[in-house]
Amino acid sequence: MSNQAAVLYAPHDIRLEERSQPQPGPKEVLVEIKAVGVCGSDVHYYEHGRIGSFIVNQPLILGHESAGVIVAVGEGVSLGRVGQRVTIEPGIPCRVCRECRHGNYNLCQNVRFFGTPPIDGAFTNYVTIPDDFAYALSDSMSFEEGALIEPLSVGLWACRKAGLRGGDRVLVTGAGPIGIVSLKVAIALGAAEVIVTDVFPERLEIARKQGATRTVNVAKESLTSLGLDADALIECSGNNQALKDGLRSLRPAGRAVVVGMGPGEEASIPLSFLQNNEIVLTGIFRYANTYQDAIAMVASGRIDLKSLVTSTYKLEETEAALQAAKNDPTNIKPVVVP
Amino acid sequence: MSNQAAVLYAPHDIRLEERSQPQPGPKEVLVEIKAVGVCGSDVHYYEHGRIGSFIVNQPLILGHESAGVIVAVGEGVSLGRVGQRVTIEPGIPCRVCRECRHGNYNLCQNVRFFGTPPIDGAFTNYVTIPDDFAYALSDSMSFEEGALIEPLSVGLWACRKAGLRGGDRVLVTGAGPIGIVSLKVAIALGAAEVIVTDVFPERLEIARKQGATRTVNVAKESLTSLGLDADALIECSGNNQALKDGLRSLRPAGRAVVVGMGPGEEASIPLSFLQNNEIVLTGIFRYANTYQDAIAMVASGRIDLKSLVTSTYKLEETEAALQAAKNDPTNIKPVVVP
Amino acid sequence: MSNQAAVLYAPHDIRLEERSQPQPGPKEVLVEIKAVGVCGSDVHYYEHGRIGSFIVNQPLILGHESAGVIVAVGEGVSLGRVGQRVTIEPGIPCRVCRECRHGNYNLCQNVRFFGTPPIDGAFTNYVTIPDDFAYALSDSMSFEEGALIEPLSVGLWACRKAGLRGGDRVLVTGAGPIGIVSLKVAIALGAAEVIVTDVFPERLEIARKQGATRTVNVAKESLTSLGLDADALIECSGNNQALKDGLRSLRPAGRAVVVGMGPGEEASIPLSFLQNNEIVLTGIFRYANTYQDAIAMVASGRIDLKSLVTSTYKLEETEAALQAAKNDPTNIKPVVVP
Amino acid sequence: MSNQAAVLYAPHDIRLEERSQPQPGPKEVLVEIKAVGVCGSDVHYYEHGRIGSFIVNQPLILGHESAGVIVAVGEGVSLGRVGQRVTIEPGIPCRVCRECRHGNYNLCQNVRFFGTPPIDGAFTNYVTIPDDFAYALSDSMSFEEGALIEPLSVGLWACRKAGLRGGDRVLVTGAGPIGIVSLKVAIALGAAEVIVTDVFPERLEIARKQGATRTVNVAKESLTSLGLDADALIECSGNNQALKDGLRSLRPAGRAVVVGMGPGEEASIPLSFLQNNEIVLTGIFRYANTYQDAIAMVASGRIDLKSLVTSTYKLEETEAALQAAKNDPTNIKPVVVP
Repeated sequence: MSNQAAVLYAPHDIRLEERSQPQPGPKEVLVEIKAVGVCGSDVHYYEHGRIGSFIVNQPLILGHESAGVIVAVGEGVSLGRVGQRVTIEPGIPCRVCRECRHGNYNLCQNVRFFGTPPIDGAFTNYVTIPDDFAYALSDSMSFEEGALIEPLSVGLWACRKAGLRGGDRVLVTGAGPIGIVSLKVAIALGAAEVIVTDVFPERLEIARKQGATRTVNVAKESLTSLGLDADALIECSGNNQALKDGLRSLRPAGRAVVVGMGPGEEASIPLSFLQNNEIVLTGIFRYANTYQDAIAMVASGRIDLKSLVTSTYKLEETEAALQAAKNDPTNIKPVVVP
Repeated sequence: MSNQAAVLYAPHDIRLEERSQPQPGPKEVLVEIKAVGVCGSDVHYYEHGRIGSFIVNQPLILGHESAGVIVAVGEGVSLGRVGQRVTIEPGIPCRVCRECRHGNYNLCQNVRFFGTPPIDGAFTNYVTIPDDFAYALSDSMSFEEGALIEPLSVGLWACRKAGLRGGDRVLVTGAGPIGIVSLKVAIALGAAEVIVTDVFPERLEIARKQGATRTVNVAKESLTSLGLDADALIECSGNNQALKDGLRSLRPAGRAVVVGMGPGEEASIPLSFLQNNEIVLTGIFRYANTYQDAIAMVASGRIDLKSLVTSTYKLEETEAALQAAKNDPTNIKPVVVP
Repeated sequence: MSNQAAVLYAPHDIRLEERSQPQPGPKEVLVEIKAVGVCGSDVHYYEHGRIGSFIVNQPLILGHESAGVIVAVGEGVSLGRVGQRVTIEPGIPCRVCRECRHGNYNLCQNVRFFGTPPIDGAFTNYVTIPDDFAYALSDSMSFEEGALIEPLSVGLWACRKAGLRGGDRVLVTGAGPIGIVSLKVAIALGAAEVIVTDVFPERLEIARKQGATRTVNVAKESLTSLGLDADALIECSGNNQALKDGLRSLRPAGRAVVVGMGPGEEASIPLSFLQNNEIVLTGIFRYANTYQDAIAMVASGRIDLKSLVTSTYKLEETEAALQAAKNDPTNIKPVVVP
Repeated sequence: MSNQAAVLYAPHDIRLEERSQPQPGPKEVLVEIKAVGVCGSDVHYYEHGRIGSFIVNQPLILGHESAGVIVAVGEGVSLGRVGQRVTIEPGIPCRVCRECRHGNYNLCQNVRFFGTPPIDGAFTNYVTIPDDFAYALSDSMSFEEGALIEPLSVGLWACRKAGLRGGDRVLVTGAGPIGIVSLKVAIALGAAEVIVTDVFPERLEIARKQGATRTVNVAKESLTSLGLDADALIECSGNNQALKDGLRSLRPAGRAVVVGMGPGEEASIPLSFLQNNEIVLTGIFRYANTYQDAIAMVASGRIDLKSLVTSTYKLEETEAALQAAKNDPTNIKPVVVP
């Protein structure tokens, strides 16, 4: 069987190559990839060849939002899984370190994560993955929806860290793909109000369509002047001012979760405000133990993902998909369909 | 102004009486009652003249699920509140004891609770209440919905104590009014599956209409044989077997909240199972700090209450409302409209 | 090298045998056992040949509270560990199931636990164990103390599940070995008062020596009449009356953790009291992620374990050690020193 | 009865004056003050006449760490309290707002706090206070210890917010009075290691005497180069570099609590590090519901406060006490004894 892959050689240099088909090892499955979402980090590697200290030093297959069909299983895996439609959790932890043993496996220092140098990702026909990181999709879910379980997991993890409760007023700063999934999860968890900010009117329009109860164009309107008194902030823009204004929009004992990655190592926060109001601030790094729940929420209709798939591409069009994600703020989620 | 009241003198003896109109004290408001839901505890007092150690020794006005209009305010309350449509939180704590100071004011030993001897309730035209226990309704909400914020608060509190998370599989045992509101809250908080049990087919039918993903008639089918592996149990039947089977239906580290009140002081639980699986079991007593969130969830459309109002009665028909609640399992929530 | 083992063939039938020395597999270490504490469960297997559904159907080596020296390492383990003095966490989880991935690895259904049929334990000269389940002892700690990290972990886990906070009043029902370690942990975590109950005066005397601020002989005095208003209950007796009275001794919103195993599957609890006071009740099954912390607390002097080692035995005296644990309530912890 | 008071008129201008004796209102008690600790905030008002937006615009009595004897009671308070030795919690919340009702009464916007403009404090002979904010001291405790329950509460609250667990490695940056009480609480809560930093060798010496397992003079040694991998950070210096280095010294999923107040509104934090490691950062504002527990910990001997009282002064020497606190880094806690 042929195994094509879209391989990043250097910034703006992606080549379609034939690769040898991987073989599933013990407790692994072989998945034929059917859909791969494009993430902002894929775009960043494509543009810059690196993210922080992660540098593309050798040819790399990007893509970590993927779904497909199990076509073979390794030793110790039930043969009954062959033919199963699955979504793939793309970060494989060591299962032995302190973080893994505490259930924080997303913080494992030895994790192997798809499309992060030097680990290859899913813009290809076949990948192998441990049995327990391939999750069955419900019959009602498409492969595209399956691929989007990954970004949905980020939104779910963010909302969990934010301790969302029914009736909350939630502020989401940044209406990119992660802001939008966070918005959708917040509503699905019973948030009564979700205020979304951005500087692009077209993104705010999408946020309204996806359920935002209020949008604020922070290029034109001051966030802090609104007196939001929000219960929770989910910062998805990576902008320091958004973080600062978002924190100042919280009620006493409010919670803030930083998801967006900014340009630098450090950022400024209104520390006195945080202290005087006992605001709780944290950030998230990927997610842990979210896939099963995210699938269940989609399968049961609590969350709709279909409306987020805004365009599809063939494997040989991977570069076009990456460019679409970069250039068109309304193209929330381009999906490559090998 | 006339102030009529439906007064319980003895089991099955309710008399419509003229009472002097109450005056709002400092930091209190006077509310003209517009809707009062009938609760199972009202029915129990009406039938038996007591609940446990709470005994109706003197004429008592029942009713604690109420909404109305502020018609006067006491010293220290903004005059602007006159005319405001409100729902009333019916338990006034002492604000001084350990439980109050910790925020567990529902556990205050000095609480004064509507319709619980010797404190009069809301089956009347006028009541007074502290300013902060009268919550503004959104314009979109009716008085009947406002009255139902009280039972909704019970469901919300139960779900909070159950630590519900998005994607959970929730088991609700008992499809009476509290089982139904718990079901509705669970869905609004992102539960993917809610399994509801009862022995009345017509109640299970209501549960399905209200969103249950599965119903089980436990008169005909064994709950434990289903292998539910549920994340959370909300026990609303007051039946010991339901509690035992419900607990055994939980996954390891599952959580159980007992809402239904059984006939006796004690109950049997599968303790070994609870220990081996580190199940967390608790119960709830009313609620605390739920009103604002419950209103927000209804106002924003996360939860529909309208479909729960199954019949309305005049104040002089209070007795008929109590009997309807008792005799007709499909009459989820009769509401008295003074 | 000779590898002797004390093997249980049937109730009251333990035989010293020569066994082949185990070889450490990949990521495993070989430990020469230097101390093994006797636990109540060892005694129960010795007496009855079973605990619940765990039945000794084939010759079994008991013992799961152990410490020793690493004498060889398998593939993938640093050679530097050879010679290291370690304590052994005796339950090896699958690392793959839902519970493992959530950090609740003690609830793993596939765990392999020392001295639990059909898995052999530590009353022997040599055992193998995964690298990460052998924890380095500080130089200041003896092997006997190292072995007692296991029961200390139970006490630490119980106190964690009880949510102990500085200044708490803690009730420990049952002054056996686990009651005593729970008492010691509670004090080390800042409990201001620890009340310990039992029916044996000599055990209560030990409790006082180990720091109990008050003891109650429940054969002579009613616990509930004391009005303890305790913050937390740690039930270590396995007695249903102790559980019931202990629960009734809690303050509103108090927490209860059941550690002791009773004779039956079910137990009775004061459910109305639990509901009216929103008591939180749970049980524990072994422990997870406690070893490192337990070692640190002993190494830093926060907890003294030396005084709990009440007698030592040679490997060939294992049966005498088991009988001592059974027959002498003041012999808190007999330790076998191979 | 004479009621003397040390009144701040302007920076460096404190005058001893006769004031009329206050009368206890309903549910209040009148306390004759016997000891008042000097806090850094007192010193700051004395030096600068303001802290942030709190400005001394009229003569003000400072002092909020106080203890004394109840000499009279108002309506609704048991006469039995007269003669009781008590410590005074100095911040009286409104008991009505959202924060009060949730138990976060320290975040009440309407709080009246001793020695914070325009509310007078305790450098005087007599004060009134609500019944429930005057806590009985155990017979074993001195008035000086009683006064120090206030700073101890800050340390206890900081450790609670830091989620300290037995066996933790805790980093305390800043060895002033609050750093020292945080250190002492951390040890009392079972922290295995407490590393304390400062730039004054004499303060580090005090930290070692008070139980620090390690001290670091950050004027001479880089904190981040130590690779501490701490479980929790309690920042007590108010220095931005200490916060940044402290955060970088945390393990994945570590917790940080900012207690020290810096010079500005904002501060810089290593946000990428916080995100990548899911560090949880919060700050504290005073404390809530700590007094009873703090007293219990001192009364039971879990925490020693006596060694923190480094000097005593008469009421007419209040200015000298303030200067001592300011000028002598080894004079941890000067106490005024009226």
